[in-house]
Amino acid sequence: MPNKLFFQCGQPVTLGELANHISAVLPDGADASKLIADVSPLDRATDQDLSFFENRRYLSQLEQTKAAAVLLDPRFADRVPEGVTALLSDRPYRAFALSAQFFYQNAEKSGAIHPTAVIDASAIVDETAVVEAGVVVKDGARIGAGCVIEDNAIIDRNVRIGDGTKVGAGAYLGFCEVGSKCLIHPGVRIGTRGFGFAMDEAGHIDVPQLGGVQVGVGVEIGANSTIDRGMSEDTVIGDGTKIDNLVQIGHNVKVGKGCVIVALTGIAGSTVLEDYVVLAAQVGIAGHLRIGRGAQIAAKCGIIRDVPPGARMGGVPAVSIKQWLRQHAVLEKLSRPGAGRKK
Amino acid sequence: MPNKLFFQCGQPVTLGELANHISAVLPDGADASKLIADVSPLDRATDQDLSFFENRRYLSQLEQTKAAAVLLDPRFADRVPEGVTALLSDRPYRAFALSAQFFYQNAEKSGAIHPTAVIDASAIVDETAVVEAGVVVKDGARIGAGCVIEDNAIIDRNVRIGDGTKVGAGAYLGFCEVGSKCLIHPGVRIGTRGFGFAMDEAGHIDVPQLGGVQVGVGVEIGANSTIDRGMSEDTVIGDGTKIDNLVQIGHNVKVGKGCVIVALTGIAGSTVLEDYVVLAAQVGIAGHLRIGRGAQIAAKCGIIRDVPPGARMGGVPAVSIKQWLRQHAVLEKLSRPGAGRKK
Amino acid sequence: MPNKLFFQCGQPVTLGELANHISAVLPDGADASKLIADVSPLDRATDQDLSFFENRRYLSQLEQTKAAAVLLDPRFADRVPEGVTALLSDRPYRAFALSAQFFYQNAEKSGAIHPTAVIDASAIVDETAVVEAGVVVKDGARIGAGCVIEDNAIIDRNVRIGDGTKVGAGAYLGFCEVGSKCLIHPGVRIGTRGFGFAMDEAGHIDVPQLGGVQVGVGVEIGANSTIDRGMSEDTVIGDGTKIDNLVQIGHNVKVGKGCVIVALTGIAGSTVLEDYVVLAAQVGIAGHLRIGRGAQIAAKCGIIRDVPPGARMGGVPAVSIKQWLRQHAVLEKLSRPGAGRKK
Repeated sequence: MPNKLFFQCGQPVTLGELANHISAVLPDGADASKLIADVSPLDRATDQDLSFFENRRYLSQLEQTKAAAVLLDPRFADRVPEGVTALLSDRPYRAFALSAQFFYQNAEKSGAIHPTAVIDASAIVDETAVVEAGVVVKDGARIGAGCVIEDNAIIDRNVRIGDGTKVGAGAYLGFCEVGSKCLIHPGVRIGTRGFGFAMDEAGHIDVPQLGGVQVGVGVEIGANSTIDRGMSEDTVIGDGTKIDNLVQIGHNVKVGKGCVIVALTGIAGSTVLEDYVVLAAQVGIAGHLRIGRGAQIAAKCGIIRDVPPGARMGGVPAVSIKQWLRQHAVLEKLSRPGAGRKK
Repeated sequence: MPNKLFFQCGQPVTLGELANHISAVLPDGADASKLIADVSPLDRATDQDLSFFENRRYLSQLEQTKAAAVLLDPRFADRVPEGVTALLSDRPYRAFALSAQFFYQNAEKSGAIHPTAVIDASAIVDETAVVEAGVVVKDGARIGAGCVIEDNAIIDRNVRIGDGTKVGAGAYLGFCEVGSKCLIHPGVRIGTRGFGFAMDEAGHIDVPQLGGVQVGVGVEIGANSTIDRGMSEDTVIGDGTKIDNLVQIGHNVKVGKGCVIVALTGIAGSTVLEDYVVLAAQVGIAGHLRIGRGAQIAAKCGIIRDVPPGARMGGVPAVSIKQWLRQHAVLEKLSRPGAGRKK
Repeated sequence: MPNKLFFQCGQPVTLGELANHISAVLPDGADASKLIADVSPLDRATDQDLSFFENRRYLSQLEQTKAAAVLLDPRFADRVPEGVTALLSDRPYRAFALSAQFFYQNAEKSGAIHPTAVIDASAIVDETAVVEAGVVVKDGARIGAGCVIEDNAIIDRNVRIGDGTKVGAGAYLGFCEVGSKCLIHPGVRIGTRGFGFAMDEAGHIDVPQLGGVQVGVGVEIGANSTIDRGMSEDTVIGDGTKIDNLVQIGHNVKVGKGCVIVALTGIAGSTVLEDYVVLAAQVGIAGHLRIGRGAQIAAKCGIIRDVPPGARMGGVPAVSIKQWLRQHAVLEKLSRPGAGRKK
């Protein structure tokens, strides 16, 4: 159940209205007038809540849920307990997301500039933007309509931030142009100096990092993640890409559209991710590589060669997921007590 | 030797008093009136310092130490040089910790609200709390007795912080209730949006993250670590759990009591750690798993299945530590130059 | 091409002057009067730009570049297209770094203390230092000549910062002495409490962390990296060492001179890195170890034993790179479909 200390639920609606709003299908004979008041997980839902089922691991919770209705794939419709309405969708998690958005519409922060914010006279801040306490906006920066710049965040000189983007508390944005509708979480660092120097025993020599960072539209960047600016071209994060917490993206990296990059992953300099690549947690990708469109890289994988489009990789160094599983099966067999002895 | 630029040592005490205070045993004939003035590591201790021995790697340092007294297990009492008193304890490191606490009692920061702090009129800050420069406390937040909120930290709306808790510089706490006597280090992010969306080529759909974070009593959270709020229930960190720097804890995770989670580890969404689990550094745990009470997971391990209570695991994907060692022995043997050739 | 929104290029110079400045060699017959106006990568350079070639992966870019001149090793001089001048250097990347520094001299921030900075009366801030908005400088701190302390950074009590050091936005420096000419990036945490406690089911006992952190001259510390203070001696980072983003360095660690530590790496307590050690990304090093001078550790490697000087290691747990490659070859062979079957 949502935490009522922090979130306000909207008004109840009928199941029929909700199904319509989220493009889900009510089975014949279901009661479209049933009232739905909230969203909740299977094991905590009451008879006024909508829940969802997608991961088979939770099948026993489905079979015991007390929810008013459950979003699920039609194949599982007959696993729903009596009295619970099966609400059919081929993408139940997506439909649940839309339902939750419907009940919990973000209370918009309303526009004002806090008197403790320090905004350079040459910066242009849209009059509908919210700038919270202790924020610093430097010379030449531009902040679009409806932006929210949270407390103590820093927007460095000449940075551009598109409409409707939110910058989290204490974040630092420098040397970058950020698109509209992005979510930049607290503690993110964008545009810091790339880790570039010529190694030399007499003292490593800094290579000036003269590129910026281009962040597309609708990008999410997780708490305390870091994105370095390019060396002599820009680092790029494509539209709709979602980046989790504590991710490191090196200088000159090009991340395509709709990519998903999970926590504690690092991408070294000048590597290219084509569109819709998924990197699970703690992945490492060496520099100067190309990861093909739609490739999926398993958690903890270490990539040291180009990856073709659509490939699924695992291991260090990475091989195909299939080969990785075979390697583990072989190792398991060889290391079983008694293995290798003659019978 | 402690760094005197930053730490003030208390008054000397006799060995007898100190032994009594920390429940250590002075051997028969030892001089209980010897004065102890400070704590120090074996190789730097002077004849007024107390030191300790627990890791055999430092045995040669023990045999050459110039300390006044050394806390150690009785088995090693005869390895102490002449003139050095062996102070006996079956948990010498714990006893040393108590000794160091005795000599270096934290100078309490005394209570005041810095004039640059921005505190909403509806927030309730106990009159004994310290609120430093540039701190922001939002509407409805409550800060308990004796809390210290360090410079530029941000306490978001409706957050509750228990008595005696310290929030480090620049940290962000949102959507959470934090127990008493916690140590939240600089740059920590609590309550940020969980990494939840329904993947979709037409644009990944945000799943509203409507839970909070519950942090127990006596919890430590290391610098720049991140703890996401739950999706529709709270993320939970149990009493007495210690979390190191740069750790990522995903939405809905439940961490039990007394757990230890070392740096750069990530725990994916909805996973449960029972009490007293230890995760060494750079561990990754997949989502929706249960790690049994007292399980110990080796550094860099990748967990993709439930772990039974008390198990000790290693490798990616994880196996028992024993099996992991066998796997490495097998690999080593097979890859030795000449392996596999006929003689 | 450098991003002109953020970086200003200096005046053009002749190829002869530039070659002289960076100690590169113009081949006989080359036109020393050619004007060079900027630096750029091979694939984007125009006929007024200097570029460089060092990684063979970019050989086809070299053969098609439109640059005015390319810095490269003499062995590749004949791969340069007609009309492009080969500018010879045995360390072309280093020479390029010097060229970029030449064209893009940092506009120095000029000295002032922002009125919103909170500086304790007992702190000593050199009159040539820049202290930006929202910065907090505590009692007894000292900040040297030409330092730049960026917005919302925090300098805790008694901290010393050497001349010409830059502290990034929102960073926290406590319990430390930092040398001159360091680059401390945004969000860095120095001097936080080491992760030290005596484990105990009745409640883990804090071991007071009474050491500081010593940071040498010319050290770079990447965004959101964390360096804990020592327990009873100082944590040390040697002169000229370069640390990337999101790196964790534990209490009492001693890092030598000229080391390079790449992103998401963790070093556990009391470990010693001798000079010129290189740790690639996501490396983990256990506590109480010694890594010999010049050792190179591959990405994702896990080190659990001492490493001799000059060694090159890979794998978890680490073996020599050679042995690691053999292990993978063996595994690959054994797990090939059909392996082990009789013919």
